[in-house]
Amino acid sequence: MKQHTHRLTLRTQGKGLVPITRPVLDWVSGTGIFTGLLTLWCPHTSCSLTVQENADSTVRADIAAFFETLVPEEHGRYQHSTEGPDDMPAHLRTMLTQSGLTIPVMDSGPVLGIWQGLYLFEHRRTPHRREIVLHLFGT
Amino acid sequence: MKQHTHRLTLRTQGKGLVPITRPVLDWVSGTGIFTGLLTLWCPHTSCSLTVQENADSTVRADIAAFFETLVPEEHGRYQHSTEGPDDMPAHLRTMLTQSGLTIPVMDSGPVLGIWQGLYLFEHRRTPHRREIVLHLFGT
Amino acid sequence: MKQHTHRLTLRTQGKGLVPITRPVLDWVSGTGIFTGLLTLWCPHTSCSLTVQENADSTVRADIAAFFETLVPEEHGRYQHSTEGPDDMPAHLRTMLTQSGLTIPVMDSGPVLGIWQGLYLFEHRRTPHRREIVLHLFGT
Repeated sequence: MKQHTHRLTLRTQGKGLVPITRPVLDWVSGTGIFTGLLTLWCPHTSCSLTVQENADSTVRADIAAFFETLVPEEHGRYQHSTEGPDDMPAHLRTMLTQSGLTIPVMDSGPVLGIWQGLYLFEHRRTPHRREIVLHLFGT
Repeated sequence: MKQHTHRLTLRTQGKGLVPITRPVLDWVSGTGIFTGLLTLWCPHTSCSLTVQENADSTVRADIAAFFETLVPEEHGRYQHSTEGPDDMPAHLRTMLTQSGLTIPVMDSGPVLGIWQGLYLFEHRRTPHRREIVLHLFGT
Repeated sequence: MKQHTHRLTLRTQGKGLVPITRPVLDWVSGTGIFTGLLTLWCPHTSCSLTVQENADSTVRADIAAFFETLVPEEHGRYQHSTEGPDDMPAHLRTMLTQSGLTIPVMDSGPVLGIWQGLYLFEHRRTPHRREIVLHLFGT
């Protein structure tokens, strides 16, 4: 058994899903691990991780609209408002999705379904530098 | 340290929670691993995994009703509608629950609480063939 | 590779977020594992785990208010009511957050962001004894 770690850095340009499948697959493949377990961790409280359909781009628009309704940005709705009107909704959207994903690895890659893509879900309006920590172990 | 993988296949008959605790426990027990870590992964974007009360069947009815209200199937509500009115809600319900579960294993089984059951949460109306990938390592 | 397990016990005093970062960090540090993978599991169906901002206490008040609205305690709303009006909402709030968290470990601790804290999210009104199972492996 061997283990590997890595930090993936990306820049977000406002709210929305940022695809990360490709760099994750590339890193896993490069480690030489054939069978094992992959963990992604998002060390932020205003963006999160999610698995979603990777085919139809309208899915992403529907997701954005759904979360705007489910966790509205509304003046006066939240006590925590010093960091801007999108900050408290960002915390709540993070809670309702994932900060971490753990996925079995077979044949040198995570066992994603054919329609599954990995995404960073940015909840802040302004550009941010984001980091995802990867951990992989196996043989 | 040893690791094992397995694919569990099941057929769903429309929306709802499908219990999977028994086959998961049986597989873990059969591997001979006593202490370790179990991961379940659902490689689909319109069904998910969840942990729920396994005792009172009205809990499942309440869950179904809650998600119909939280993520409604409503004509014209979503841009992504080519795969049927239940497809976009299925993606959103998947996002709000889990695609993966990782559970410590002690005494040859996952450390589930006495009331905890593992379920596949089917979000599509029509019957589907579903797969869950299992990964277990330990000693 | 070595693995360690532990059971963390705490008493909750009604609904809300209970910080658990400190005892988790202390236990991880005490195992002597430098690089690895940490898993927390909550073996209950009416409380859950979450990662949240650890700085501004109004965040916790906003979270409480948000979940009261998202999953209301409302007489007659749920079929499952024999265990009290807060029990079915507790199950649903558990489903919408996490029963488990898996976090890479580097430098003898989980790679939490500077604003990230680990919390048990209690969903029941009355005091409860709660347990969290920890699993850690690595080198």
